[in-house]
Amino acid sequence: MTESCYRLGEIAAELGAELRGDPDTIIHGVATLQAATAGQITFLANPSYGRYLKDTRASAVIVSPSAAGDSPTNVLLLDNPYLGYARLSHWFDPAPRPQPGVHPSAVVDPSARVSETASVGPHAVIEAEAEIGDHVVVGAGTIIGARCRIGSRTVLRPRVTLAHDIVVGQRCHILSGAVIGSDGFGFANEKGAWHRIAQIGKVVLGDDVEVGANTTIDRGALEDTVIGNGVKLDNLIQIAHNVTIGDHSAMAAMVGIAGSTRIGRHCVFGGASGVAGHLEIADQVQLTGMTLVTGDIREPGVYSSGTSADKNRQWRKNAVRFRQLDAMARKLKELEKKSEG
Amino acid sequence: MTESCYRLGEIAAELGAELRGDPDTIIHGVATLQAATAGQITFLANPSYGRYLKDTRASAVIVSPSAAGDSPTNVLLLDNPYLGYARLSHWFDPAPRPQPGVHPSAVVDPSARVSETASVGPHAVIEAEAEIGDHVVVGAGTIIGARCRIGSRTVLRPRVTLAHDIVVGQRCHILSGAVIGSDGFGFANEKGAWHRIAQIGKVVLGDDVEVGANTTIDRGALEDTVIGNGVKLDNLIQIAHNVTIGDHSAMAAMVGIAGSTRIGRHCVFGGASGVAGHLEIADQVQLTGMTLVTGDIREPGVYSSGTSADKNRQWRKNAVRFRQLDAMARKLKELEKKSEG
Amino acid sequence: MTESCYRLGEIAAELGAELRGDPDTIIHGVATLQAATAGQITFLANPSYGRYLKDTRASAVIVSPSAAGDSPTNVLLLDNPYLGYARLSHWFDPAPRPQPGVHPSAVVDPSARVSETASVGPHAVIEAEAEIGDHVVVGAGTIIGARCRIGSRTVLRPRVTLAHDIVVGQRCHILSGAVIGSDGFGFANEKGAWHRIAQIGKVVLGDDVEVGANTTIDRGALEDTVIGNGVKLDNLIQIAHNVTIGDHSAMAAMVGIAGSTRIGRHCVFGGASGVAGHLEIADQVQLTGMTLVTGDIREPGVYSSGTSADKNRQWRKNAVRFRQLDAMARKLKELEKKSEG
Repeated sequence: MTESCYRLGEIAAELGAELRGDPDTIIHGVATLQAATAGQITFLANPSYGRYLKDTRASAVIVSPSAAGDSPTNVLLLDNPYLGYARLSHWFDPAPRPQPGVHPSAVVDPSARVSETASVGPHAVIEAEAEIGDHVVVGAGTIIGARCRIGSRTVLRPRVTLAHDIVVGQRCHILSGAVIGSDGFGFANEKGAWHRIAQIGKVVLGDDVEVGANTTIDRGALEDTVIGNGVKLDNLIQIAHNVTIGDHSAMAAMVGIAGSTRIGRHCVFGGASGVAGHLEIADQVQLTGMTLVTGDIREPGVYSSGTSADKNRQWRKNAVRFRQLDAMARKLKELEKKSEG
Repeated sequence: MTESCYRLGEIAAELGAELRGDPDTIIHGVATLQAATAGQITFLANPSYGRYLKDTRASAVIVSPSAAGDSPTNVLLLDNPYLGYARLSHWFDPAPRPQPGVHPSAVVDPSARVSETASVGPHAVIEAEAEIGDHVVVGAGTIIGARCRIGSRTVLRPRVTLAHDIVVGQRCHILSGAVIGSDGFGFANEKGAWHRIAQIGKVVLGDDVEVGANTTIDRGALEDTVIGNGVKLDNLIQIAHNVTIGDHSAMAAMVGIAGSTRIGRHCVFGGASGVAGHLEIADQVQLTGMTLVTGDIREPGVYSSGTSADKNRQWRKNAVRFRQLDAMARKLKELEKKSEG
Repeated sequence: MTESCYRLGEIAAELGAELRGDPDTIIHGVATLQAATAGQITFLANPSYGRYLKDTRASAVIVSPSAAGDSPTNVLLLDNPYLGYARLSHWFDPAPRPQPGVHPSAVVDPSARVSETASVGPHAVIEAEAEIGDHVVVGAGTIIGARCRIGSRTVLRPRVTLAHDIVVGQRCHILSGAVIGSDGFGFANEKGAWHRIAQIGKVVLGDDVEVGANTTIDRGALEDTVIGNGVKLDNLIQIAHNVTIGDHSAMAAMVGIAGSTRIGRHCVFGGASGVAGHLEIADQVQLTGMTLVTGDIREPGVYSSGTSADKNRQWRKNAVRFRQLDAMARKLKELEKKSEG
C-alpha cells in the first residue's frame, strides 16, 4: 500500500482555501487534531475541540478564519472546515481502486451492456439487458438483475444484490449486503391464510444516493419505491414498498419506514427510529433515536418518543406506574375539583 | 421484456369471478384505481378508496358486489377483491422466470440430488447430500449447506445462505440476504469469559413460508427452531434459537424474537416489535409497532407498549416526568388520603 | 452423516469431571434433560429444571455436586455444569469440517498469503496482500478485502464480507452475511446537501470474537473501530465507526451502537437496545431489551428504559396521558401547596 503525498499549496488550491504558511509543506495523511503528527493535515470543525488546537502536532490545520488564531502550524482557512476535510479525505483513502474491465470469473449475460470503463469484480453476476454506466464499479459477488440501469460513477461494493428492473442514478454508493428490489411484504388474507401478491413495481434511486450495509429497499407493489437525489441511508435500514423519500434526507442505522409512507426532503432520522405505513412526513423533520411515528407530521421540527435509560431499580417503579397513568390522571382531576369546590 | 395479455373473460374464469361487461376486453397490466389506464385492470378492496372508483380509467375493476355500483367500466365481482388481485398479480409479474438446469458456474457437490426441473443460478453452491426438489429455484450466489432438503416449487432468491441440515417445505419464498441456520447465540460464562456452545439443532420451515431480505433464523441449540406453515416474515427479522412460530403468523420488518420463545398461530406482529426469551405467546396475538413483550401473553388480542412521537420540546418535559412517576403516584395517594381524612 | 461415539470415562477425563457411574457407558449424543434418551448425555445447569432430573432417560448427566442427589443415572460432577455442556457440545456438532485447501472456483490474488492448513471454500475471493492464518476457514462466497489479516483458527462462515485492511484475531467466528469494514456514515453538509467523508480507519477485532449473521461493523473515519477480546455480537447488530467495545462484552441481536461511543468491559446488552453516539459506558453495564441510552453511564449496574406490552385498550389511555405528564406534575405540585397551605 503506497502512500499519497501532496504539497500543501496544491491542497489549498484544490479546496479553494486561503493558505497561511508554507505551500511546500509535504502532507501524506489526515488525522484528528489530537492524533495528527508531522506530515499530516487535520481540521477543526466542532468548536468543543478548539482547546486541542494549540497543542496539535499536525503540519497543517483546516480551520475557519475565526478559530485560526491559536494554530501553532500552517492553516488552510475555509468557512466550512468540515466540508474541506470531507473533500480532502478522499485523497488519502487507502481503499483499492478497481481497474476497468470484467473479471474472468464474473458471469455477464451477453445481452447486458457494460461500459468499457466499468469494473466488474470476481464472481459478480450481471443479468440480461442490464446497463452498467461509465466508471461504474461492480464489487466481487455483486448481483445485478435483469434490465437494471446503473448510472455512471456509481459504486456497488462487494456482495450487493439488485433484483430485476432497478434504476440507480449517478455517483451512488451501495454498500455490501444491501438488497435493493426485494419483494414488498404484501399478502391477501383468506380464511386466515396469507396469499402473496406479486410485487410489480420497481425501485428508483436518484443521483448521489448512499445505501448502507445490509440495508433493504423493497420494490413497489404496483407503483415504484422512490429514493430521491442525495438521500443517505445508513446500515440495516428497512424501506418498505411504495415508500418515497425526498431529496437529501438522511437516516441513521436501523431506521424502518413502513409501506407507502412519503418522507419529505432534508429530513434527518436518528438511529432505530420508525415510521408507520401510509403516512406523510413533511420536509425538514428530525426524529431523535428510537422515535416511533404513528401519525402524519405536517410541520418541520424535531420529534421524539419513548424514554431513555435509568437505573433498573428506579425504572421498574416508574414503568409500573405508566400502566396506572390514566387512573392517576383521573384521580388528579377529582382532587382538583374537590380542592376548588 | 414482453408484456402479458389476457382476455377479460379468461381472467374472470380463472378467478371464479362473475363478469359484468365485455369478455373480449384485452388486459395487459394491473394498476391502482387512480393510476390505471386503458388496457389495465384494477381493484377496489379498501372502502376508503371507493370515491376513486367512478373516475377510474381502467378497463376492468375487481370489486365486491356491494361496491360495484359506481364502476364506469367492466367489473369482476368477488367477495374478496384483494385476494382476486393477489392471484391475478402474478400473471403480470415482470420478474424473469429461471429456466431449469444448473448454471455451469454453480458448484454442486456430486452427492447432492438436484431435480432435473430445478433451476440453479450462477455461482450458487450446493453442498454434500443436499436435496433440491422439483421446480425449485436456487438464485445466483445462493449457498445451500450439506444435507439441506428443499421442498418442491420453493424459490430461493439470489444470495441466500442456508447452513447445513436445514429443512425447507414446499412453495417457500426466501429473499436475498436471508441467513437460515446461523448459530444460535449460546455461551457459557466462566470467570467473565464466554465459551461458545455448539448449536446442534436444525431449522425446520413448513410449507408456504416467506422469509424476507436479510432476515436471520438461528438453528436450535439442541432442539430445532421451527417455523410453521404459511408463516410470513418480512425483512431484517431476527428469530433466535429454539423459537417456534405457529402456522400462518405474520411479522413485519425488524421484529426480534429471543431464544426459546413460542409464538402461537395467526399472530400478527408490527414492525420492530420484540419478544423476550423463554415466553409463550397465545394464538391470534397482535402487537403494534415497536412493542416490547417481556411476559407471557395468554389471551388473543392487540397489545402495545411505548409512546409515539411528539414535538421534542413537549416530549422532553414529559420524558423527564416519567422518571418521577413513582414519586408522583405516591404524592397523589397522600393527597387523596388527606382529602378523604 | 456419521455419528460420534465416546466412552463416558473419556468424556469425564476431558472435562475434568468426577464420574459416578460406569465409565464404559457409550455416549453418542447430547440432548436436554427432558428429551434425552438412552445413549445421550444431558446436563442440569438451571435449578428450575431440577424437577426433571429424576425422570431423565439420559445415560449420563453433567450436574453440580449439590444437585446430583436425584439423578437416576450416571453423573459427571462439575461446579459449572453449563460450561461442561458448552465444551462437550462441540464433540457432537454435526457441522461439516472443511478440509484444508483452496477450492478451484475461489479467486485468490497471487499476492495474498494463505496458510496451507487453511480452507478456502467455493467462490470465495481473497484480495491482494491478504494474510490468512493457520487452520482458518473461509466459507463459500466469503470475500476478504485487500491487506486483511485473519488470525489462526478463525472461522468465516459462507458469504461474509470483509472490506480492505481489516484485522481479525485468533479463534474468531464470523457468521454468514456479516459485513466488517463497511464505510462509516460520515457526511459534511453544505447548503442542505451531504458530502461523503472517506472512511480511512480500519476495524480491529481481538481474539475469540463472535460476529453474528448480517451484523455490520463500520470502519473508522480516521481512527479504528475496535472490538475487544472475547466480545460476542449476535445477529443484525450495528456497530458504527470509531466505536470501541471492551473485552468480554456481549450484545444480543439488533443492538445498535452509534459512532464514537466507547463501551466498557464485561457489559451485557439486551436485544434491540441502543446507545447514542459519543458516549462512555462503564464496565459491567447491563441493558435490558430495547433500552435506549442517551447519556454516559459511569457506574456498573442494570439500566432500562421504555415500557412493556399492555392490552392495547389500556395502553392507549395511558399513552395519551404520557403527553400530559408534565401538566399533571405541575397540577400535583399546586395541589400539594394548597393542601400544605
